[in-house]
Amino acid sequence: MNTPSPTPTPSTTHAHIVSSYEAELTTLERSIRDLAAAAARQLEDAIDCLVHQDVDKARAVAARDAELDALDDDVEAACVRILALRQPHADDLRLTITTIKASNELERIGDFAKNIAKRVEAVARFPTLPAVHSLPHLKDLAVGALTSAARAFAERDADLARAVWESDAPLDAAYTALFREIVTYMLEDQASITPSTHLLFAAKNLERVGDHATNIAELAYYLASGTRLEGDRPKADRSPFIGAGADGA
Amino acid sequence: MNTPSPTPTPSTTHAHIVSSYEAELTTLERSIRDLAAAAARQLEDAIDCLVHQDVDKARAVAARDAELDALDDDVEAACVRILALRQPHADDLRLTITTIKASNELERIGDFAKNIAKRVEAVARFPTLPAVHSLPHLKDLAVGALTSAARAFAERDADLARAVWESDAPLDAAYTALFREIVTYMLEDQASITPSTHLLFAAKNLERVGDHATNIAELAYYLASGTRLEGDRPKADRSPFIGAGADGA
Repeated sequence: MNTPSPTPTPSTTHAHIVSSYEAELTTLERSIRDLAAAAARQLEDAIDCLVHQDVDKARAVAARDAELDALDDDVEAACVRILALRQPHADDLRLTITTIKASNELERIGDFAKNIAKRVEAVARFPTLPAVHSLPHLKDLAVGALTSAARAFAERDADLARAVWESDAPLDAAYTALFREIVTYMLEDQASITPSTHLLFAAKNLERVGDHATNIAELAYYLASGTRLEGDRPKADRSPFIGAGADGA
Repeated sequence: MNTPSPTPTPSTTHAHIVSSYEAELTTLERSIRDLAAAAARQLEDAIDCLVHQDVDKARAVAARDAELDALDDDVEAACVRILALRQPHADDLRLTITTIKASNELERIGDFAKNIAKRVEAVARFPTLPAVHSLPHLKDLAVGALTSAARAFAERDADLARAVWESDAPLDAAYTALFREIVTYMLEDQASITPSTHLLFAAKNLERVGDHATNIAELAYYLASGTRLEGDRPKADRSPFIGAGADGA
């Protein structure tokens, strides 16, 4: 802004419109990364509260979920505005649609963090269960997947997207192992049953975060490559079958 | 087709294009109702299998989820095609975007039915637990909400949409009561713990169906009225607090 701008000619006006449009599209990519960072922080904080039985902080975490909901609304409104005013095609249309969907996945991940935070009060009335210390590992896997999926989306990195998509199995396996561990404590100690049910749901929430991260990875792959990820995703969540024949227990 | 068609003039060609576009939009509304009917049937069947310990049928129900996924993909592809080729505005743009979102909600409801069906094998290895007979009531509430929400969407009925949105509390309350009932059985009878955990998750899945039906109701209201539902949705799921002070247990 050191020199006065020339009076815009039709062609510079056009360039200005295009570059403002491009700025809008770039904002979409950044907003997915911002939402992912906020969701990751919520998960970190919720699990931290559960491990340290910090009821006050847990309430603050649950309340903060409204910020993620508002961010998701903003992203969607920006996308709808682009659809209405810019009538995007091809790549830009794909970006707009996948951004709406990815934003929605991240908002739901926020809901899982909120649900975990809401359980802290109930869990904190009981002595700390040993199984609670397995949750941070699950959370690390879930946050890792979520962060990588969002990066793959923002950077249009098809290889990273595929890697995230293929890496859900360790989280599922860790969840199944923890489910089994928690049920064992319930069988051994009747007093642990009520808090244990909450840990079961907290663990399930983290496993579901992995599923949503996988969905974001699918969107990222589609965005980057224009094609869908093919084949069956490796799944290792055997927990619905625990108690059934082949799975023992 | 009894008389030969006249050679199209520009104006009849235009009318033809418009009416084909309208047919595409009407198809979107119908597809949401079809998806909702398919999801409702999956829930009916999954709970039926759980109550009657029908493992073979449960496998078929789980396998049938792929059909819902394919339907959702078809709906989304139709919407993206409309966005790309028709560049819809105002009402039509709103219909296209809300249809993508409602379809996605219904696909997720299908996932919950699949998850319930997958638990049948594990539950069927144990004697039938009394709590299983409370699940059909929860399922009826969830299916009722889902069906009404889809009807509100297809018929653009804002009043019905609001009624669905406000009626989630009974399902949440029934879920909280069942959660409490199941935990009581777990406390009384150690042998019931493993199958009870599966019933807890099945009940939770039905409660989540209600949340997704509420989301569809919000989309239906927005589609019908152009404005958002305001205010706090009545919530009665106190289960995350069970074991915490105020809630007793």
